[in-house]
Amino acid sequence: MTPALIIVDMIKDNVETEKHMGISQETKYILPNMICFINYFRKKGFPIVYANDSFLKNDFIFRGKMKEHAIRGTSGTQVIDIIFPKLDDIIINKLRFSAFYKTDLDQILRRLGVDTVFVVGISTMWCVFLTATDALSNDFYTIIVEDLAACHKKEAHDKFIELYKNFPLFPLFRFLTSQESMDMISKGKNAYTPG
Amino acid sequence: MTPALIIVDMIKDNVETEKHMGISQETKYILPNMICFINYFRKKGFPIVYANDSFLKNDFIFRGKMKEHAIRGTSGTQVIDIIFPKLDDIIINKLRFSAFYKTDLDQILRRLGVDTVFVVGISTMWCVFLTATDALSNDFYTIIVEDLAACHKKEAHDKFIELYKNFPLFPLFRFLTSQESMDMISKGKNAYTPG
Amino acid sequence: MTPALIIVDMIKDNVETEKHMGISQETKYILPNMICFINYFRKKGFPIVYANDSFLKNDFIFRGKMKEHAIRGTSGTQVIDIIFPKLDDIIINKLRFSAFYKTDLDQILRRLGVDTVFVVGISTMWCVFLTATDALSNDFYTIIVEDLAACHKKEAHDKFIELYKNFPLFPLFRFLTSQESMDMISKGKNAYTPG
Amino acid sequence: MTPALIIVDMIKDNVETEKHMGISQETKYILPNMICFINYFRKKGFPIVYANDSFLKNDFIFRGKMKEHAIRGTSGTQVIDIIFPKLDDIIINKLRFSAFYKTDLDQILRRLGVDTVFVVGISTMWCVFLTATDALSNDFYTIIVEDLAACHKKEAHDKFIELYKNFPLFPLFRFLTSQESMDMISKGKNAYTPG
Repeated sequence: MTPALIIVDMIKDNVETEKHMGISQETKYILPNMICFINYFRKKGFPIVYANDSFLKNDFIFRGKMKEHAIRGTSGTQVIDIIFPKLDDIIINKLRFSAFYKTDLDQILRRLGVDTVFVVGISTMWCVFLTATDALSNDFYTIIVEDLAACHKKEAHDKFIELYKNFPLFPLFRFLTSQESMDMISKGKNAYTPG
Repeated sequence: MTPALIIVDMIKDNVETEKHMGISQETKYILPNMICFINYFRKKGFPIVYANDSFLKNDFIFRGKMKEHAIRGTSGTQVIDIIFPKLDDIIINKLRFSAFYKTDLDQILRRLGVDTVFVVGISTMWCVFLTATDALSNDFYTIIVEDLAACHKKEAHDKFIELYKNFPLFPLFRFLTSQESMDMISKGKNAYTPG
Repeated sequence: MTPALIIVDMIKDNVETEKHMGISQETKYILPNMICFINYFRKKGFPIVYANDSFLKNDFIFRGKMKEHAIRGTSGTQVIDIIFPKLDDIIINKLRFSAFYKTDLDQILRRLGVDTVFVVGISTMWCVFLTATDALSNDFYTIIVEDLAACHKKEAHDKFIELYKNFPLFPLFRFLTSQESMDMISKGKNAYTPG
Repeated sequence: MTPALIIVDMIKDNVETEKHMGISQETKYILPNMICFINYFRKKGFPIVYANDSFLKNDFIFRGKMKEHAIRGTSGTQVIDIIFPKLDDIIINKLRFSAFYKTDLDQILRRLGVDTVFVVGISTMWCVFLTATDALSNDFYTIIVEDLAACHKKEAHDKFIELYKNFPLFPLFRFLTSQESMDMISKGKNAYTPG
């Protein structure tokens, strides 16, 4: 198994302000474990991807109730300091929810020999889930790390996982805790290995 | 407003067999209203898209628990007879969940001047939702018609809608009943028009 | 080496009418060798792809001097009888020049384990070349089979090959005759093998 | 008409070194007029896009004769100083030849209301041409500015233009000098306007 980690939308505008769905409080709860999980990937030398919202001025998606935030080229699109990328990490500026939407991430991951993708970050129900389903669509075994993803409310996060947990796409697409994820990686077993 | 209707995965293997998630029973409940809704679009002369699962032999997504079904080139990928496409309808054979994944549907819809997309079919939580979020990503106002979409269980369908109903992307992305949808279309008001 | 053959735009409107650049005469000269080459692939059991123009009514590309032709859903988009596809061949209806433009061909080829792509058909300078460069962009070793591709004029075809023959992308991207191609395949050596 | 300018691959590794096809000498001949052309766009307030090679370490395209250059994250991928981007310019880091390949440039241009694209830079026969044909595929009127594009040899550049000049896609796809381009823009006439 060659895993990659995709960290979704852990950027200043989302985490340090309330512009994005009032999600900042919930995000803080997942940060300590996320730091450890990133470190684990870093020590193992596996690829780490930061996929960051990077919207346009007057972007279509701001025509609804969502406040303007994470505008391309502004400091609000930078990853928060505490998990700031290192030189060799992969930065994806994404126009929409999924890290794969109109980006070259699929080809980068294949070039690195990646077969399994772990997705963490915010929000569980939108950008994390849509990045995960696009990873699956691109033929990567896909895991949403459930204690490293957050919604605007813990209750919504839990309901989401409850709803999507038992599906025929298992185990190509699955939820694991960060501990279970590290166990699976250390065993070198791919996501689809039964048992 | 120029609306288009996207009918997701109402194909023989999914509706007339139990190969796809045991969804056939729930699908039958939404069919009568769906037939009326399609007729409404047809009478108005608005574009109708059939987006059909079209998987590969030995496809990646069959490496999990999901049984092989809807294989490209087989009769199981054909739309069920009762809502069979007409000559001018648009047929999209989709490799994955979303009708926009590696297809030219976005460009076809733009060429037709479409600005608003109504999504119906199965299953609510996967192909309907992922088609809808890709429509939104492509800058179309997007409506999931809630009484014309189904899951393997009515309960899961209801929980899904409850979970996603009140989000900042409203009203760019929203749920409406088929009656509310026809009302909106007949008023000629776009999805984002407040009030 | 696992090769695939992509046959570009050998459809009725292009070959049997003069709607498409007056290319029908030149196309006939390449047909006999193309038939043999297709047979070679068929006997070996390698994948064969037919990539066919499939334009929209009132399509953007007809706003210039080009006459309307190869409209999606019409019989003019069908492959000419003499090289008509078999059941297991792959059919790609392409909206634009390249067989990879908004299609799932890249993923289909990867699923089949293809690493090397041979491109034949019409016209050398547009759809054949742009399919070949997209194959290369998608990390396939790419060969344009020079005696199986044609332009509106033989002179233009020759000048094109002269112009593009010696480039730093060699041998990832190269020109070979059909005989040289079959020799390479039978040796099982990949396009990049020096000597 | 709302035009945009796409400046292709005018980066340090390509222009200031001989790593990329030995093209640096020819590039210098087109620079003075290119500077004026960029200034013209800047004064008018039209969008300016810098599309820059951004290859991967051990990238597929370096398996042939082409030397490793323009590696993502290195200073060699930066635009040369004399035409360095301003704050509001659009930067596209492209994995392959075309500025549209696995990027969000099409959607950015549409959001800005762009209908006509002028392409300049290097090299005429590869990245300039393939960016231009992808612009055309995405339904933009497309002009290659012939005195602002260069090949490894002037002779090849001239032969290329000679070969592609008179094609049925005219005038959706065409060649103009920088002077003719500015004339067309100042008249506000779109590329397809006859006369």
